[in-house]
Amino acid sequence: MLSDNPSAGILVIGDEILSGRTREGNAHYLAGVLAATGFDLREIRVIPDDHATIVAALQAMDRTLGGTWDHVFTSGGIGPTHDDITADAVAEAFGTVLEIHPDAREAMAARYASLGIELNDNRLRMARVPVGARLIVNSVSAAPGFSIGVTHVMAGVPNVFRAMVEAVLPTLQAGRPQVSETLEMRRGESDVAADLGEVAEAYSDLSLGSYPFHDEDGWGTNLVVRGVDAARVSAAMAELKSRLGVAG
Amino acid sequence: MLSDNPSAGILVIGDEILSGRTREGNAHYLAGVLAATGFDLREIRVIPDDHATIVAALQAMDRTLGGTWDHVFTSGGIGPTHDDITADAVAEAFGTVLEIHPDAREAMAARYASLGIELNDNRLRMARVPVGARLIVNSVSAAPGFSIGVTHVMAGVPNVFRAMVEAVLPTLQAGRPQVSETLEMRRGESDVAADLGEVAEAYSDLSLGSYPFHDEDGWGTNLVVRGVDAARVSAAMAELKSRLGVAG
Repeated sequence: MLSDNPSAGILVIGDEILSGRTREGNAHYLAGVLAATGFDLREIRVIPDDHATIVAALQAMDRTLGGTWDHVFTSGGIGPTHDDITADAVAEAFGTVLEIHPDAREAMAARYASLGIELNDNRLRMARVPVGARLIVNSVSAAPGFSIGVTHVMAGVPNVFRAMVEAVLPTLQAGRPQVSETLEMRRGESDVAADLGEVAEAYSDLSLGSYPFHDEDGWGTNLVVRGVDAARVSAAMAELKSRLGVAG
Repeated sequence: MLSDNPSAGILVIGDEILSGRTREGNAHYLAGVLAATGFDLREIRVIPDDHATIVAALQAMDRTLGGTWDHVFTSGGIGPTHDDITADAVAEAFGTVLEIHPDAREAMAARYASLGIELNDNRLRMARVPVGARLIVNSVSAAPGFSIGVTHVMAGVPNVFRAMVEAVLPTLQAGRPQVSETLEMRRGESDVAADLGEVAEAYSDLSLGSYPFHDEDGWGTNLVVRGVDAARVSAAMAELKSRLGVAG
């Protein structure tokens, strides 16, 4: 699809995804939010808890480091344990170091005091933020995320990730929301391929896709038209229905 | 984790994942299978239906093209419609061209004849395979996947993807299956971080992770020890339980 929307990549950091233990859901959630908000998600990358791999991925993805995307959203690796190495790797990628951020310490101290929990050294690790980063508020459990360059570093725990997405997205300059229309057909992909291809060529500013599925009634195909111009999306869908003999 | 297992990457190709329309599941399924079979999955990458992007990703990932991994498993983009461009891009990445593979055509002709469906030009697109590739049998709907270099090209439809994984994996030289043990604790990550970190250091050939969760009973943490040597995994878990005062 062609759009002027800011581009985005998602970097998921965690051995537990690559081992098959955990089914990743944060990237799927954020993909929907980015489309609806006006960002053009172009890549999702899942990598292990490995320092050099994280640094290299950020250099490949963050525009301000010479990478490809206007925004990079990371998930995972900012907790209190030995395998939480994202903040250290981000600091290295941006040529800076970590320091305890006073606002982060304050937010965490307030929360732990209210719970009667000690703010021990391991917890305080979560207040370490690269020098020059801006905090992303964590309304669930206090320990914040942060933004540096065009990278936005967030937690892997799903409800914390979502809270951080809700905190950071309104601070970013978005483009136009994507809209889509779907036509479900009880025909095989191959039967609609020629018409779909011709409409796709005529509407090259849009994304036209076909997605076969199988349910209790047998095979079918969802035809999806997507773009940032709702009138164009509707026009393409009308053209598709007309060609396929579907009542508008 | 350190192991001699062959390394692997998964390349998911599809606009529908990046738009948030579809929640990816093939990579999660394959991640579990790879761990259990004896491959070390090191990267999952999701990219759009874009020719140049697919070519570049294969060059970055396939060892025989100068990339990083011993095996690359792709999902998506081998259907009959205009947006199914994976085979063309794979051919270009490997410096070859597509041709109708006689065995693929035969398998598809037999299936479509039995269903009373015409093997039209769009369907026949799915018999196009890079010169030199080996077919991956599709026991569900006939149109095959294929292997070239160390890249294994498979369908995105989940039940077809699984059938192709089951067909191709036994043809590959695997290493040692990964095993894991999990300890669920009703304590916060921060409380166990110090002990966990020390055991992780003592067992640097294993992967030790901690995964916080939240359910109806509040917060908890799963501690996971993973490796290819079951005796080492058990020893590390015993050490962890002893330090944390958990009955063995």
